[in-house]
Amino acid sequence: MSDRPADSTSPLLRRWEQRTEVPLFGVSLLFLLGYAFWVLAPDDAEPWRDIALILVGTTWLVFAADYAVRLRLSGLGHRFVRVHWLDTMVLLLPLLRPLRLIRVYTAVQQRREQPRLSLYARVISYAGASALLLGFSAALAVYHQEHKVPDSTIHTFGDAVWWACETLTTVGYGDAVPVTPSGRVVAAGLMVCGLALLGAVTGSFSSWLLQVFRREDEKRPPEGR
Amino acid sequence: MSDRPADSTSPLLRRWEQRTEVPLFGVSLLFLLGYAFWVLAPDDAEPWRDIALILVGTTWLVFAADYAVRLRLSGLGHRFVRVHWLDTMVLLLPLLRPLRLIRVYTAVQQRREQPRLSLYARVISYAGASALLLGFSAALAVYHQEHKVPDSTIHTFGDAVWWACETLTTVGYGDAVPVTPSGRVVAAGLMVCGLALLGAVTGSFSSWLLQVFRREDEKRPPEGR
Amino acid sequence: MSDRPADSTSPLLRRWEQRTEVPLFGVSLLFLLGYAFWVLAPDDAEPWRDIALILVGTTWLVFAADYAVRLRLSGLGHRFVRVHWLDTMVLLLPLLRPLRLIRVYTAVQQRREQPRLSLYARVISYAGASALLLGFSAALAVYHQEHKVPDSTIHTFGDAVWWACETLTTVGYGDAVPVTPSGRVVAAGLMVCGLALLGAVTGSFSSWLLQVFRREDEKRPPEGR
Amino acid sequence: MSDRPADSTSPLLRRWEQRTEVPLFGVSLLFLLGYAFWVLAPDDAEPWRDIALILVGTTWLVFAADYAVRLRLSGLGHRFVRVHWLDTMVLLLPLLRPLRLIRVYTAVQQRREQPRLSLYARVISYAGASALLLGFSAALAVYHQEHKVPDSTIHTFGDAVWWACETLTTVGYGDAVPVTPSGRVVAAGLMVCGLALLGAVTGSFSSWLLQVFRREDEKRPPEGR
Repeated sequence: MSDRPADSTSPLLRRWEQRTEVPLFGVSLLFLLGYAFWVLAPDDAEPWRDIALILVGTTWLVFAADYAVRLRLSGLGHRFVRVHWLDTMVLLLPLLRPLRLIRVYTAVQQRREQPRLSLYARVISYAGASALLLGFSAALAVYHQEHKVPDSTIHTFGDAVWWACETLTTVGYGDAVPVTPSGRVVAAGLMVCGLALLGAVTGSFSSWLLQVFRREDEKRPPEGR
Repeated sequence: MSDRPADSTSPLLRRWEQRTEVPLFGVSLLFLLGYAFWVLAPDDAEPWRDIALILVGTTWLVFAADYAVRLRLSGLGHRFVRVHWLDTMVLLLPLLRPLRLIRVYTAVQQRREQPRLSLYARVISYAGASALLLGFSAALAVYHQEHKVPDSTIHTFGDAVWWACETLTTVGYGDAVPVTPSGRVVAAGLMVCGLALLGAVTGSFSSWLLQVFRREDEKRPPEGR
Repeated sequence: MSDRPADSTSPLLRRWEQRTEVPLFGVSLLFLLGYAFWVLAPDDAEPWRDIALILVGTTWLVFAADYAVRLRLSGLGHRFVRVHWLDTMVLLLPLLRPLRLIRVYTAVQQRREQPRLSLYARVISYAGASALLLGFSAALAVYHQEHKVPDSTIHTFGDAVWWACETLTTVGYGDAVPVTPSGRVVAAGLMVCGLALLGAVTGSFSSWLLQVFRREDEKRPPEGR
Repeated sequence: MSDRPADSTSPLLRRWEQRTEVPLFGVSLLFLLGYAFWVLAPDDAEPWRDIALILVGTTWLVFAADYAVRLRLSGLGHRFVRVHWLDTMVLLLPLLRPLRLIRVYTAVQQRREQPRLSLYARVISYAGASALLLGFSAALAVYHQEHKVPDSTIHTFGDAVWWACETLTTVGYGDAVPVTPSGRVVAAGLMVCGLALLGAVTGSFSSWLLQVFRREDEKRPPEGR
């Protein structure tokens, strides 16, 4: 939440981050893919599930190595764990990596010199994409926890995606609800993150709509002639 | 979300859009009417249901023709499909046409030189009307998908409208919930669009209320005498 | 939604409104009281229920007389019905009268020259009080419609109040839900009004909190010495 | 909601409040701890439950003494009860004390001269921490009321925490719902406070996100070279 990292970090760390951001995002998509395959594949797809698990482990090791390099480059020692608490949390719960999407976006934009989207469109697309990826990750995790529990209401992955939809939008019909403690912890995390991200989407959409209507006012006199 | 169409489009395309906007809105109301009749009429009202289906098909062809003309006039070639992605989506899912309501409103306003509503009132009426039309379309589509499914909770069109109400406002009691995959896809679309549109309504209402109270402050000294 | 009434109405109408606002609010509380007694009293409290019904009828006649006087004073003729559509709606559905609370507040404030609450506090108290009164009216109306229906989930007035709470805040557990068409119409009205009013409450609270924290920043240097 | 206490209160009262704020917050944590132990301990942990109850009583007496001292120092007499209505309410319902967290934060910050968090981060952390503490208190109170009621859906403290989560975020699945009148009163309080506090969190997060994206725009030209 602080912008200090961009100001006070060593130039070495900054260059490392700028260069690794996009490859690491690719690695985190691989992680999600491996995890998704491991969770969704039928139990008897044995050789493939093992490969998916190895993929998950390898990509996590890449994250750990990146974390270690950044800890060294920062020159902060043990304080790095606390100052960069979001990074520490993301290392322990790699399914939260979508929240780092904002850095990837910035890194990509700095390379190609294209005209960029308007402010509100960028906030909407960033928050929307993060919410989408978080919702997908949460649906995977909840399906993983719940689909074999006897009195569960989430039997298929479709149910889990439907549950993620109604949770992110805070509709909450209650036809698909996690019943295991671990499933509920994932759900609580999704509620809080989703509420903030979707709040940003609707807030920006509302501001954008007001701006469109206001601009139309200003344009009007010359057009009305 | 970008305002480029208004700036960089060819004058021909712009004139075409200004002239066809209102008739096309009439056509899209016809489309909705035909679809509503086809969905809601009893199965044995055979000659009429066929007529409704023909109406739906014809109006869709009008939309397709309009899309083709605009694709040609724009001079963008294949890129038109991507640049005007909202129009492409609206062509494929004509029930989303209410989202174009904003253009109709502008077109109508440019003709009659009446004093217009205040900024917030316009945003509220635009977003409210879009939410209403989207909710009605979604209720029709969900009723169409669900009303014959055995374990459905949406049996009558009244149930579907009630479901649309509690979904748009994110109340989500859960007494009427789609159970088929296609019904759930419609519901997810309604949740996201509805959240954004109703967020705009409540945000504008809140801003408007603050403005009223603030103005009352300023007016006060002369009135208090 | 327009502020025209304050500007273009005849002085006679304005004076009439300023003088009758507070007495009429008292009458509308009487109306609510009578309606509440009529709905909540046991069936065998016969003489009292009739008196309550007479009270409801009499107060409604007062509203009708006020509407007729204002229609004449305005000099608008039939257009009054359309221009003052909120007043027309309130006449037909007197349970919506709490929405006029804003005028009462202004009228009271103009008489006593006390220092008033801050802007946000006024918006919060107006929107909060309106939401409270609307919620109470809706709970009465829904209880009236539902409490004798066989498969209803709202059996006592406490259930109806609980239902109004979870509907206004859009929590929507679904343990108490109207099942009759008329009950659902009341519920839909409460959802829309409640969403807008509570959105104003939370939006103003959020702005107020930001203001408090910002002001604290500015005060800090002199205090820190 | 008014900022008058900071301006018009006597210097004695102000110094008393600045000095006692942090110790009293410690006492209120002790209160919460004692209440939590008393509610959550098994019935046969008899000597300890009595000690917890004594702790609750003693800490409440400390609050009462503080209230009495402040009533005297203020020089307001009986009007203190009405002017400081939030304090009066907090005295009667000590589980609402988390709402006073904002004063503790200010008091702590005035002592250590550290650089503070940005405006939005402070609002988010204050509102988030208040929501967390309120949610925990409400979960305790609801568990206390509901866990022995026959047709309750809240059997364990985990259920109560899960219920608090879905209520604060207004998701409201309806799988865990209070059924007793007292449990519902607690729930209604949590809904209203939670709605306002979480609305402040999401509103500030949204503003913060917009600020980050806007700042990035301004920084861009020098970085792009």
